[in-house]
Amino acid sequence: MTDRDTRRRTIHDVAKAARVSISTASNALNGTGRTNVETRERVKRVAKDIGFRPNALARSLLTKRSHAIGMLTNDTYGRLTLPMAAGVSEVLVDQGLSVFLCATNNDPRLARLHLEALLDRQVDGIIFTATRLDLPPPVELTKLPVPVVYVFAEGPPDSISFVPDDIHGARLAVEHLKSLSRSRILHVTGPHDYLAVRRRAEAYRESVGSGAEILYGDWSEEWGHSAIDEVFARKGPRPDAIFCGNDEIARGVIEALRDIGVRVPEDVAVVGFDNWEVISKQTRPPLTTIDMQLKELGHQAGLAILELAKGEEVAPGTNRLPCSLVVRQSCGSMTR
Amino acid sequence: MTDRDTRRRTIHDVAKAARVSISTASNALNGTGRTNVETRERVKRVAKDIGFRPNALARSLLTKRSHAIGMLTNDTYGRLTLPMAAGVSEVLVDQGLSVFLCATNNDPRLARLHLEALLDRQVDGIIFTATRLDLPPPVELTKLPVPVVYVFAEGPPDSISFVPDDIHGARLAVEHLKSLSRSRILHVTGPHDYLAVRRRAEAYRESVGSGAEILYGDWSEEWGHSAIDEVFARKGPRPDAIFCGNDEIARGVIEALRDIGVRVPEDVAVVGFDNWEVISKQTRPPLTTIDMQLKELGHQAGLAILELAKGEEVAPGTNRLPCSLVVRQSCGSMTR
Repeated sequence: MTDRDTRRRTIHDVAKAARVSISTASNALNGTGRTNVETRERVKRVAKDIGFRPNALARSLLTKRSHAIGMLTNDTYGRLTLPMAAGVSEVLVDQGLSVFLCATNNDPRLARLHLEALLDRQVDGIIFTATRLDLPPPVELTKLPVPVVYVFAEGPPDSISFVPDDIHGARLAVEHLKSLSRSRILHVTGPHDYLAVRRRAEAYRESVGSGAEILYGDWSEEWGHSAIDEVFARKGPRPDAIFCGNDEIARGVIEALRDIGVRVPEDVAVVGFDNWEVISKQTRPPLTTIDMQLKELGHQAGLAILELAKGEEVAPGTNRLPCSLVVRQSCGSMTR
Repeated sequence: MTDRDTRRRTIHDVAKAARVSISTASNALNGTGRTNVETRERVKRVAKDIGFRPNALARSLLTKRSHAIGMLTNDTYGRLTLPMAAGVSEVLVDQGLSVFLCATNNDPRLARLHLEALLDRQVDGIIFTATRLDLPPPVELTKLPVPVVYVFAEGPPDSISFVPDDIHGARLAVEHLKSLSRSRILHVTGPHDYLAVRRRAEAYRESVGSGAEILYGDWSEEWGHSAIDEVFARKGPRPDAIFCGNDEIARGVIEALRDIGVRVPEDVAVVGFDNWEVISKQTRPPLTTIDMQLKELGHQAGLAILELAKGEEVAPGTNRLPCSLVVRQSCGSMTR
């Protein structure tokens, strides 16, 4: 056996190198049977020296835990999922757990295949995540023999979910605009059939009071442009601030305002939602926006699945995590 | 046992329900020992009826294959990795293989933790991917006991790599501009220390010949703006086409041209690189660009790791996959 030999070391190699029987080597490494301290320590040292790696599969069979969890997502571009998956993984990796990422593309057949593979592997738990809070899983998840946690998705009653607190996020945005003495605040947002849109709109309406006006459209820059064209074509008072449903809409709004000679932030302040940096840092001026703390959502979901995998109780319910306001230059307050 | 009982079914449950011994049930399900056809079929039917799921961990121990592969990435936003991971997964899921996604954040400690967890689980193979072709893995991958495939990353000599053919992509862009009778084609691209940048630049220079001019900067929209400010401030002939190193630079270029009253595509045609739709579909006009076929790269890497996991040979070397030209409106040719 040379230094360059990369074949996997087995218990046979350990026994040979430590000059003990295989059963003694096994007992020493597993803390089973009767071996004296000196032998046990020596076998462990030899095992480490020769690069022996205990068989996790065999251990899993004994402990009935696979030390793996599955993450089902419908997000193919990864904008929301990858930051959350990184958060989940950060919590789990130190505990020796790994994450199977399964892209379902919202296809029930694919979702079922993934789910069956996960159950076959006896994962310790499943995390379901989606690109919107109110998207039902493409495969039944309520009667599984393993725990399920929902993140950026609201599970059925009695499930454990972690979602951004959209109401809090919308309030942060509006209160920021009010603190800068803006008084005619318009809300340009996404499709009304999104739960997050309705929640943010409600929080906006409550915070703004009379004079609230909400324009629903799609999630695109194009919609931001059209909304401005519409609002600035009509008569009457014009908004001095616009709270946008996402950063892409905000980018369209800012560009459309520039096109018609309205200054941001001097004439109109603009706030986005998402803090998707490829957009929010690139608008001119850079965008003040709401960050949904995706990585922290992942942390929380990871901690919950870890507890459940250990057999601990986790209180069911929807956990809403606070958002944060990221101040750049589109509202007039400084710091970049 | 009721319909609502979700606990995992064991071989004991199968034996009990089929009224056979445990060893008969096991033999029938595993095709081992001697059981008559009728009993075997009945046991299988009963197993299916009660929702028995063979233990993949136990099977893995027997076959020495875990039917899982690990994917190491440094990409936290997922823009490149998730489309590739979806491609890998599409190939593997039908074969019953799942993918562990491990975000290393380029941190050697984290990468080592992930790698050790993967080896502990005796994965059938490892796919390494990165956000640039020439990024060395944050952890040693050359002497592992399992096969390794590189995708969107060039491994060491004799490794198996799948990368986009940047030279082909750059040629597609320049030939498209030439076919539209553009004759003063400028190249505004990313940092010179990126292998992909140098390859694209070389292909551009070869295709354009005399009059080629390359401006290196960073990957941002801001750089696109500055490049235009610089080029249009100086005397002499101006470009009638700009081939950009990525879509973000192209977006900055298009906006800067609009700011100074130069029309796209009438006065200047613009081509991007990446086909990152959140950018390329949102520029005004929408961007003609080069698509690196990330999902297909994932397919190829998945097929290679599958062969290797089965013990088949795969020829070492770097496989360069063709790019494709996506025609939108920024060069004057039609179709959106």
